[in-house]
Amino acid sequence: MKNVNQIKIDENPLLKKMIDDMENTGFNAKRIAVACKIYEKMVNDKECKIFFSLAGAMVPAGMQNIIIDMVEAGYIDVLVTTGANLTHDIAEALGFHHFQGNLAIDDKTDKDLHDEHMNRIYDVFMPNNVYEGMEDFIKTLKFDLNMSVKDFLAYLGNQLPNSPKSLLKACAKHNVPIFCPAFTDCGLAMQISFAFPKVNLNHFQDLQDMINLAWDAKTAGVCIIGGGVPKNYIFQAMQFSPNSSQYAIQITMDRPETGGLSGAELREAISWGKINEKAEYTTVVIDATIALPIILSYLKTVMK
Amino acid sequence: MKNVNQIKIDENPLLKKMIDDMENTGFNAKRIAVACKIYEKMVNDKECKIFFSLAGAMVPAGMQNIIIDMVEAGYIDVLVTTGANLTHDIAEALGFHHFQGNLAIDDKTDKDLHDEHMNRIYDVFMPNNVYEGMEDFIKTLKFDLNMSVKDFLAYLGNQLPNSPKSLLKACAKHNVPIFCPAFTDCGLAMQISFAFPKVNLNHFQDLQDMINLAWDAKTAGVCIIGGGVPKNYIFQAMQFSPNSSQYAIQITMDRPETGGLSGAELREAISWGKINEKAEYTTVVIDATIALPIILSYLKTVMK
Amino acid sequence: MKNVNQIKIDENPLLKKMIDDMENTGFNAKRIAVACKIYEKMVNDKECKIFFSLAGAMVPAGMQNIIIDMVEAGYIDVLVTTGANLTHDIAEALGFHHFQGNLAIDDKTDKDLHDEHMNRIYDVFMPNNVYEGMEDFIKTLKFDLNMSVKDFLAYLGNQLPNSPKSLLKACAKHNVPIFCPAFTDCGLAMQISFAFPKVNLNHFQDLQDMINLAWDAKTAGVCIIGGGVPKNYIFQAMQFSPNSSQYAIQITMDRPETGGLSGAELREAISWGKINEKAEYTTVVIDATIALPIILSYLKTVMK
Amino acid sequence: MKNVNQIKIDENPLLKKMIDDMENTGFNAKRIAVACKIYEKMVNDKECKIFFSLAGAMVPAGMQNIIIDMVEAGYIDVLVTTGANLTHDIAEALGFHHFQGNLAIDDKTDKDLHDEHMNRIYDVFMPNNVYEGMEDFIKTLKFDLNMSVKDFLAYLGNQLPNSPKSLLKACAKHNVPIFCPAFTDCGLAMQISFAFPKVNLNHFQDLQDMINLAWDAKTAGVCIIGGGVPKNYIFQAMQFSPNSSQYAIQITMDRPETGGLSGAELREAISWGKINEKAEYTTVVIDATIALPIILSYLKTVMK
Repeated sequence: MKNVNQIKIDENPLLKKMIDDMENTGFNAKRIAVACKIYEKMVNDKECKIFFSLAGAMVPAGMQNIIIDMVEAGYIDVLVTTGANLTHDIAEALGFHHFQGNLAIDDKTDKDLHDEHMNRIYDVFMPNNVYEGMEDFIKTLKFDLNMSVKDFLAYLGNQLPNSPKSLLKACAKHNVPIFCPAFTDCGLAMQISFAFPKVNLNHFQDLQDMINLAWDAKTAGVCIIGGGVPKNYIFQAMQFSPNSSQYAIQITMDRPETGGLSGAELREAISWGKINEKAEYTTVVIDATIALPIILSYLKTVMK
Repeated sequence: MKNVNQIKIDENPLLKKMIDDMENTGFNAKRIAVACKIYEKMVNDKECKIFFSLAGAMVPAGMQNIIIDMVEAGYIDVLVTTGANLTHDIAEALGFHHFQGNLAIDDKTDKDLHDEHMNRIYDVFMPNNVYEGMEDFIKTLKFDLNMSVKDFLAYLGNQLPNSPKSLLKACAKHNVPIFCPAFTDCGLAMQISFAFPKVNLNHFQDLQDMINLAWDAKTAGVCIIGGGVPKNYIFQAMQFSPNSSQYAIQITMDRPETGGLSGAELREAISWGKINEKAEYTTVVIDATIALPIILSYLKTVMK
Repeated sequence: MKNVNQIKIDENPLLKKMIDDMENTGFNAKRIAVACKIYEKMVNDKECKIFFSLAGAMVPAGMQNIIIDMVEAGYIDVLVTTGANLTHDIAEALGFHHFQGNLAIDDKTDKDLHDEHMNRIYDVFMPNNVYEGMEDFIKTLKFDLNMSVKDFLAYLGNQLPNSPKSLLKACAKHNVPIFCPAFTDCGLAMQISFAFPKVNLNHFQDLQDMINLAWDAKTAGVCIIGGGVPKNYIFQAMQFSPNSSQYAIQITMDRPETGGLSGAELREAISWGKINEKAEYTTVVIDATIALPIILSYLKTVMK
Repeated sequence: MKNVNQIKIDENPLLKKMIDDMENTGFNAKRIAVACKIYEKMVNDKECKIFFSLAGAMVPAGMQNIIIDMVEAGYIDVLVTTGANLTHDIAEALGFHHFQGNLAIDDKTDKDLHDEHMNRIYDVFMPNNVYEGMEDFIKTLKFDLNMSVKDFLAYLGNQLPNSPKSLLKACAKHNVPIFCPAFTDCGLAMQISFAFPKVNLNHFQDLQDMINLAWDAKTAGVCIIGGGVPKNYIFQAMQFSPNSSQYAIQITMDRPETGGLSGAELREAISWGKINEKAEYTTVVIDATIALPIILSYLKTVMK
């Protein structure tokens, strides 16, 4: 089996030109271009604090370096994500790998994978022994059991081995706060719970910190990758930002008609006061694993 | 504007016959029938503990009574849900209403709605003054600031006025635990945070309680309505259930190809040991607001 | 393997009551109710000619009787469909069957099915020998090789054995014209092509007939099941109807953001003059195999 | 209003490197890379005849030049498409333009657009006067009223003014046959029908020609852009190709669970003998307006 590579994205002037051209087309070709341009404006607007939500399990799919690069380049000021992304980040930081499954999926059944102690995430596999390595690392931790999740994640980032392969570490180094509102919904939190039975990380302290960050941002921009809790957590804070969000881009494959937040159109957020009525915003209906490389390459090219 | 009605579902022998017939067809017609049959088996299996996840904002869409009925009938043993459902549940319990928006959506812009203090959830509107009523209620609460979210939600259910219109109350009365892993991601939690600045509900206690519930269930069944955190929280606990889940039904409009958990096929969970390789399971690709009335009507008819 | 049953739908007053209640909710629960009500109005409006498009392969999924019933009850005045539906209709009319595949799909690979001469349509299987039976039937035909597709399909309906299991026969009997704009895109047309090498059914005569039907309909209603060519063919004709369509319902799982017609919102058709700006219309995002039984049961109940 | 530009795609070695890297990731990032590699193999396999289906309305979205370039470079041997793409192609060839609509869509209602004689295709607008220009052109034509659609389209390409902006012209020049199985389902065919009331283009001749092309292709590859009739028409012919298709890529946003062909998984085609069991194939779930620029840029880079 082959490892999933955490791909590294470079500047690409010809890709930038293609994006410039796509802005003059229609459908999602236009929208991915508009999303790049809005992100560029967010980065160039020195007043703008960029709130970035990352749902799903992007690390198993090889998107870890992209987010790390965005943090290091200053394209992300506040990160809100899932426990899954953090759990898989630690796995990679500790030297474990994810594997590429066969495209057809059906040369091995899920029962076969279970017998081989291999967990499937669509067409990516993760071996169970990752958890053993993680357990050893977690046992070495010493922290205030009542600190906020955000502060704990910063501590965790600092404790990780000095590997370039960690989003937690990159965020800690660059003082980018990570919020994980559903932190107990992941393998990392389960292991912490087993190792520290009295742990009670303070999720409400996080909420207050998040609202304060929004409150202090006279200009706010949001980039929503996928939906779920990370999207909602940013938008509920935006109601407290003096001018709500003035820039917003959303990358999603969910659809609006079921009334769920994940697929909700951005303009709906205007009614709630989460997006400013004069904001620039767009939604691109595309898998994030294709959108992220394009957006980062565009940003690296124009910001260099 | 017209109120959204919280619809009440009755038994319907002719609907049951239609479902029986649909089992002999193909595509989602067959699957909704198979889902009804699997749920029926879960209910009839006296050993089986039913874990039920409810994502999205089902209460604004008029699905509140359906879930209440399922709790009262014993079709749900453990409920995992979003803060949104709880926030809207309290709104209805306190006598507020949701309103039907125009189907076309475009006779009012979201800016118009914002000016009228009306928040949009696809084609449902909720007035902002709901939050004021909720605030008054929350100020009356007295509770241990370090209790688990589950215990707090049971307390909350008991404190609500004696209205038939509350899922929180119904769960409290019937001892159905409610887990809300991303509790701080909702309006209710924000108001609690403002009223009780030192609150630190213990999310890790919830995690341990959830795992213990799974651990104690020799036979476990899961019903997944929508995806997101509620789905994942149940499945991560299933890894600790002695036989993982032996029944599973999933109602979703998300798709598997992006690798997100919300749209993941159920058979993927076999690789993780979350679903037993011999389990009966099916996914129906349908909006939950249509699936829930059908499933409840079927269950009421066969279980009476 | 079990046969797919062509299900028979009955009136159901309690289902009608549930639909009435769902009209007061939100999301797709409301929309399926609104769709039923609009269809009811179309049927009750004696001036209204109902144009019905049926994409996909609904016959293999067991929906054949539903469409036959709708034709016989007068709920369909003009049918536009795919060659697939006609090919599978003839298979059933000649006594062949479709089979239910395993829900999991993966107990047999597609290679296994190929070796067994079994063709897969998602979770439905059709044996290859259907084509042999069809070939024998087609050899018995005698017709004007330059007639329109519509007239040929009416002839075909009359020639089929006197089985209740044929949409072609039901349409022929009730003088409901069937249009199949992409007729050469199906197994039936291929067999005709082999048996009658000089055949040149006149597709342009169909186009003129279709436009004339629209032209003569002072009041027109459309019911779109799925998208594709059948949807577009009806809507392009609606531009020639004196008042375009005054009622429109659409059942689809496709999405609008890619710019394709199949998922396009109905209101887009107002810009083209295909739907009247004062029309009543709604789209329900739901699998047709669940929508059709519900809609027919509702109509049978209210119209009896 | 701004014109939609028909974008021109160049080679881009850095994009090729990014695609190479993405092959080592997961989800759709991997699949778009695999799709590029399979297409590269098809082009490099000198025996391979490439059947290319193009659904939807890609010309209004600015994708016209991309398909023209692919024809001129020899990446397409047989084109199967919708009447919509041909109608819009002629509009551009005759000097008309499509326009970019506002991203929000809601600054103008569809009624406003109707009053301004402007037709909407999601976020692209086409003025009604296009049809007048097309009518003038069509009146100048002289052709055998019983020729095949394919031959008529080649004739049409030759008659168009010597503009670089025509897919019809490019195909005529490079002897790439165009099949349009649902030809009467478009504005172009309607105008032909009005101008030549006795026209009866021979769709069955097309079917025989298509089957012969498949029959003669010892090695066949298919590239499916969108679903619908063009996809099915290629696959039904593949049953007659000596080894069915040995390469297949599919770009779609439709989903498999409704049983419709548009979203069907490629492996399903193995059961029908439309894809060889040893074929290389992949589906990418992505809007074609983003996939096409990436794939063409990749091909231009590797094939130069």
